[in-house]
Amino acid sequence: MSVHTDQSSVTVLGLGPMGRALAGAFLEAGLRVTVWNRTPGRDGELVARGATSAASPEEAVAAAPLTVVCVVNYDASDAVLRQDAVAAALKGRTVVNLSADIPERARDTAEWAGRHGVRYVDGAIMTPTTTIGTDDGVFLYSGSEELYREHQPVLAALGGSHTHLGEDIGRAAAYDIALLDIFWTSMAGYAHALAVARAEGISAVELAPFAAGIAAILPPVFTEFAADADAGTYSGRVNPVTSAASTMAHVVHASEAHGIEASVMRVIEGQARRVIALGHGTDGFIRLAEVLARR
Amino acid sequence: MSVHTDQSSVTVLGLGPMGRALAGAFLEAGLRVTVWNRTPGRDGELVARGATSAASPEEAVAAAPLTVVCVVNYDASDAVLRQDAVAAALKGRTVVNLSADIPERARDTAEWAGRHGVRYVDGAIMTPTTTIGTDDGVFLYSGSEELYREHQPVLAALGGSHTHLGEDIGRAAAYDIALLDIFWTSMAGYAHALAVARAEGISAVELAPFAAGIAAILPPVFTEFAADADAGTYSGRVNPVTSAASTMAHVVHASEAHGIEASVMRVIEGQARRVIALGHGTDGFIRLAEVLARR
Repeated sequence: MSVHTDQSSVTVLGLGPMGRALAGAFLEAGLRVTVWNRTPGRDGELVARGATSAASPEEAVAAAPLTVVCVVNYDASDAVLRQDAVAAALKGRTVVNLSADIPERARDTAEWAGRHGVRYVDGAIMTPTTTIGTDDGVFLYSGSEELYREHQPVLAALGGSHTHLGEDIGRAAAYDIALLDIFWTSMAGYAHALAVARAEGISAVELAPFAAGIAAILPPVFTEFAADADAGTYSGRVNPVTSAASTMAHVVHASEAHGIEASVMRVIEGQARRVIALGHGTDGFIRLAEVLARR
Repeated sequence: MSVHTDQSSVTVLGLGPMGRALAGAFLEAGLRVTVWNRTPGRDGELVARGATSAASPEEAVAAAPLTVVCVVNYDASDAVLRQDAVAAALKGRTVVNLSADIPERARDTAEWAGRHGVRYVDGAIMTPTTTIGTDDGVFLYSGSEELYREHQPVLAALGGSHTHLGEDIGRAAAYDIALLDIFWTSMAGYAHALAVARAEGISAVELAPFAAGIAAILPPVFTEFAADADAGTYSGRVNPVTSAASTMAHVVHASEAHGIEASVMRVIEGQARRVIALGHGTDGFIRLAEVLARR
């Protein structure tokens, strides 16, 4: 049965900016690429580069052993995949869903796929469209490792690093959520810092090198605190949460003195004070990880 | 008058972990160091290394042309400096206050210093105690550049990078607030991500390399968006705020499904939705910097 071992063709469903980047990277790698998008007219450039435009999703998925799905979320991927004709065409074939959503949607999709004889690997793309096809892309996968390994040669055409995180189908989405949590929370901090800086007559370009400098200390700090967090020790040796709370109060005060909303830092300061009130004042702020999950 | 040109001695007021690190670095550089702390008994190791322990703050500040202050905040530094005997002993001498607080406290201190003939530079230390005396320390200063330059040779003994940000005495504190805003908001995101990961059976040590990877993309992202922010263009080309808000909702949903409080991300998602409601849905999330300051 050659359909599973064919490493020369792939289908891409979803032609938003990320889907187009994925299809483009597959074309660049010399694969036969079939594409489909719910809204027509997104495939012009890809077809010019050699892609085949399918008239329907069932026609698209029938064209290759592997279909990569990249749409806005699982409501959107369900709307495409969970049609009788599409499910029938997918039988015995593989779907790698790179759309972003929460772990329970991946688990639900695995259950659906199992019922329909569809082979399914979940995935997440951690880097922007501009990294696709370069060394900088970061792709995470979960579900059957055997199935992942089977399609890895085709997925490798996307460039970058590809990591299989485990058999739990929800794991890629869980990593995705945790990492996007860090990213967007940090971005909210940056946007707020720009507002405070501006009120103090400091431009974004003036602040940026120092902001980048502070951000550059996060990777080693994250790494350093991880073992502590797993052990439940949460060392506050360098910076106890009492000291962090005092700093947070300064940020709130300095912002609000300029009429700048400080609701995010107010919540964070409140969390730090809750950690202290629970008797962990000499611990590091990361003790919060445990307190947030208390019932 | 030699008192101002003496580059061989310095006084340190405040012997918490950071104050002791500063005094230790000055000793290491061969300076004559006089130290004082409100609570006695903190100077044992420094005295053993050659520091002079002063009996009072006025005696301490009289021992050198430059006094470096490093206490918990400006309430604490005011309590030491704004005593008649101390102000009198400081007349004609220089104070560099490296204590952390908000810009208005630095401005208020400058006013006090002016009235008492005390020469004053404000400063902020952006890196942990372990960086003092190494190449990794980051020191910011503001106030009279001429005065800063006069004492720069002594301050350079602390190692690391030293930047004079401008004549506005509040500028170092403003940078400090903005950078701590970024740091602690990011740390709150990390603590929350660890809680979500744990609920999904992912340890901190497993998440850490990916968390560090996400954090490593922040410096270039911060730099890239800075010019956009100054220009008021806030490009959403790569990632419009509508897409960010959808991701934020995923984080909230996935957290709360595990009983993990998601109040920070709820606030951030609300801010993103406010940006969209104000008609900026195709902009990048950093448009928030402007929206936060609206009255």
